[in-house]
Amino acid sequence: MDDQSVTPQANDQLRGVPALSAALRWEEPPEGPEGAVLVLLDQTRLPAEEVELVCTDVQALVAAISTLAVRGAPLLGLAGAYGVALAAARGYDVDEAAALLSGARPTAVNLSRGVRRAYDAYRAALSAGADVPAATAVALSEARALHAEDARASESMAAHGLALLERLVPGGGYRVLTHCNTGALVSGGRGTAFGVALAAHREGRLRRLWVDETRPLLQGARLTAYEAARAAMPYTLLADNAAGSLFAAGEVDAVLVGADRIAADGSTANKVGTYPLAVLARHHGVPFVVVAPTTTVDPATPDGASIEVEQRPGHEVTELPGAAVPVAPLGTQAYNPAFDVTPPDLITAVVTETGVASPVDAASIAELVAG
Amino acid sequence: MDDQSVTPQANDQLRGVPALSAALRWEEPPEGPEGAVLVLLDQTRLPAEEVELVCTDVQALVAAISTLAVRGAPLLGLAGAYGVALAAARGYDVDEAAALLSGARPTAVNLSRGVRRAYDAYRAALSAGADVPAATAVALSEARALHAEDARASESMAAHGLALLERLVPGGGYRVLTHCNTGALVSGGRGTAFGVALAAHREGRLRRLWVDETRPLLQGARLTAYEAARAAMPYTLLADNAAGSLFAAGEVDAVLVGADRIAADGSTANKVGTYPLAVLARHHGVPFVVVAPTTTVDPATPDGASIEVEQRPGHEVTELPGAAVPVAPLGTQAYNPAFDVTPPDLITAVVTETGVASPVDAASIAELVAG
Repeated sequence: MDDQSVTPQANDQLRGVPALSAALRWEEPPEGPEGAVLVLLDQTRLPAEEVELVCTDVQALVAAISTLAVRGAPLLGLAGAYGVALAAARGYDVDEAAALLSGARPTAVNLSRGVRRAYDAYRAALSAGADVPAATAVALSEARALHAEDARASESMAAHGLALLERLVPGGGYRVLTHCNTGALVSGGRGTAFGVALAAHREGRLRRLWVDETRPLLQGARLTAYEAARAAMPYTLLADNAAGSLFAAGEVDAVLVGADRIAADGSTANKVGTYPLAVLARHHGVPFVVVAPTTTVDPATPDGASIEVEQRPGHEVTELPGAAVPVAPLGTQAYNPAFDVTPPDLITAVVTETGVASPVDAASIAELVAG
Repeated sequence: MDDQSVTPQANDQLRGVPALSAALRWEEPPEGPEGAVLVLLDQTRLPAEEVELVCTDVQALVAAISTLAVRGAPLLGLAGAYGVALAAARGYDVDEAAALLSGARPTAVNLSRGVRRAYDAYRAALSAGADVPAATAVALSEARALHAEDARASESMAAHGLALLERLVPGGGYRVLTHCNTGALVSGGRGTAFGVALAAHREGRLRRLWVDETRPLLQGARLTAYEAARAAMPYTLLADNAAGSLFAAGEVDAVLVGADRIAADGSTANKVGTYPLAVLARHHGVPFVVVAPTTTVDPATPDGASIEVEQRPGHEVTELPGAAVPVAPLGTQAYNPAFDVTPPDLITAVVTETGVASPVDAASIAELVAG
C-alpha cells in the first residue's frame, strides 16, 4: 500500500528500531459491508498505553482533534485531508465535513490547508464529470500525496537543520533543548524539530536532548520522551520552569522547536512556553531555531498580532492531565492559551524542507515558500 | 497562649475571613503522660484536604520538611526553632536534632538559622546553670519570639511593598504575577510576596493576581490559589509556561516573588522558574521585586554561584504530584533543581521588613540587614 511506505513504522522496522505505531493510517477493507476507516494512535493515552482510535465518521475525527488524541501541525494536515476522503467514502456531506474539520482547531494552519487540498481535488473531480466513487478516490489520492510529501519534507528538514546546527554550534556534541512534541507522532515522517535532533543522534553528534515536559498536557513528558527513549537518544526531562537554570549553567547549545503557524513576517505561533524559551535564548546568546514545513507558513497572516491563539479549557490547568484530579480550589479560573507567538527578531533561523531563512523576515520567509 | 496571638488563624478570625489553619503550632498538654508536640498543616494534601501532622519527634519533623509537608523559607525557620525545643522537651539528643534539622534542606538559609537560634539559646541556658526543663523553656521561648518577629516582619514587608508598588506602578489597579507560595502558609504572619498582594487587595488596588501553578509540585495551584480564594482576591491560575503570553500582552504590571536565600550581592535563590520570570520581566520592562525577611539574607554567601541549589528526586517530574501516576516512559531521567538563582541586575528591588533595596547590590543589601 502506498501510504504505508511512508509511515514511521515501516521506516523504523527497516532500521531495526522498535516499531512506533503509525500516528495515523487509512484502512480500507477489500470488500464486504465494512467501509473505509481512519485509524489514529490515541496520543492522550501515551506513554502508558498504545491505543488506536478507529474513526468511521468525521464527528469522531473532529472529537479526536479537539481532545488532542491526534495533534501536531503536519499530522493535523494529514488528518484533515484523510478526513475529507473519509466523509466522501462514507457518503457524508463533504461540504459540512470540510467545514467541521477546518474549524476544529483555529491556530494550526496545516489543518485547514489539508482539508482544502483534498476538498478542492474532490470538487474538481466532480466538476470534471467524475462520479462520487471516482471523486472519492481522487480525494484519497490527494491525502496520500500529502502524506508522502510530508515524509519527504521531514527528511529534507532534518538535513537542512543538521547542516545549520553544524554552522551554529561548531564542533558537534550538541545539547539541544526542545519543547512539546515534534517527532514521528506529528508527521508522516520523522517530524520537524525532533527530526533534526534524531538526525544529529544518528550521526553521533547529539550530546543531550533536553525535553521540556510542556504543561499543561505534558506532550514533552508523554510523547517526546517516549520517542526519544525508543530511538535510544540521550535525553533528560525537565519541568518547563527549569529551562532557565540550564541556560544559566551554559548547558544549552541550541533550541529547536516546531511551529503551528508562521506568519508572513516570520512570527511563529507554537505551543505555549515557546516564547519564554526564545527570550531566554536571546538573553544567553543561544541560537533559537524553528523547524517546520512550508505548509506551516501562512502568507495570508501578515504578522504575529494577526494569529488567532486558541484558548483551551481551564480544567487542563486546574486538574491533573488524564487523572481529572483537581489540584486547585474549586472555582479557580485559569488562563490557558494553547500557543504563544514568538516575533521574528528572536528567531535565529527558520528551517523548512526548501532551506533555511536567516535572518528571519518577510523576504527570507517568502523565499522559502517560493522554494 | 503567646504564640497563638500571631497565627494567621487568629488574625483572620478577627477580620471575619474564614479561618486558615495555622501552618504550624506548638501544643503542650498542661499535665499527664503526653508530652509537647509540634502540629503542622500537611501542605502536600492541600487544597483537597486540611490534614494536620502531629510531630512527636525530630525524625517526623525532618521527614515533613523533606517531603515539603512544611515548606517556605520563613516557616522553615520556625520549624527549625520549634524542632530544637521539641527535641529538648522530649529528651532527645539536642545536638543531633539540630544537625538533622539544619541539613534537611540545603538552600533555605532560614531553616539553619532558626535551628541555630533556639539551639544557641538552649546551650547558653545550660551553660549559665539552668537545668534541662529550664533550658527547654528558653529554647521554646526563643522559637516563639522568632514566630512573633516573623509575623511583625510580614506586616512591615506588606507596608513597604505596597508603598513600592505605588511608586513603580502609579495609578494602582495592579496586575501582579507571582510564583510558588509565599502567603500565610510559609510564615508566622501573612507571608512575603503574597502579603504585599493581599495588602494591595485590602486597599482595593489589586486588579488581578496571576498565579503561576509552579511545577513540579504545584505550590501555586495548590496553595497560593487556596489562599487567594480564601481571601476573595481576584486571581487567575496559569501554567508557568503561559507567563510569557501575559507579558507579551502587557497584562503584567509587576512580578512579586519570595526568596529562599539572598546572597550578600543580592543574588536570589527562589523556587525554580523564578529566573525565567526575571528575564521575561527585564525583556518587557516590568518591575521584578523580591520580598523576604532579612533572615533570608545570608552575608556568608557572597554571590549567586556560591548558593547550593537542592536537586530533588526525578519522580517529582516523571510522575504526577500526589497521584504517583507515571507520565514519562519508565527509566526517564529528570533534571529537577528545586531553585534557581536570579542575579541582582535583574531584580528591581528587594523588600524586607527594614525597608527597600533598589538598586540591588552589596551595599544596599548590607544596609537592609543593618536595619
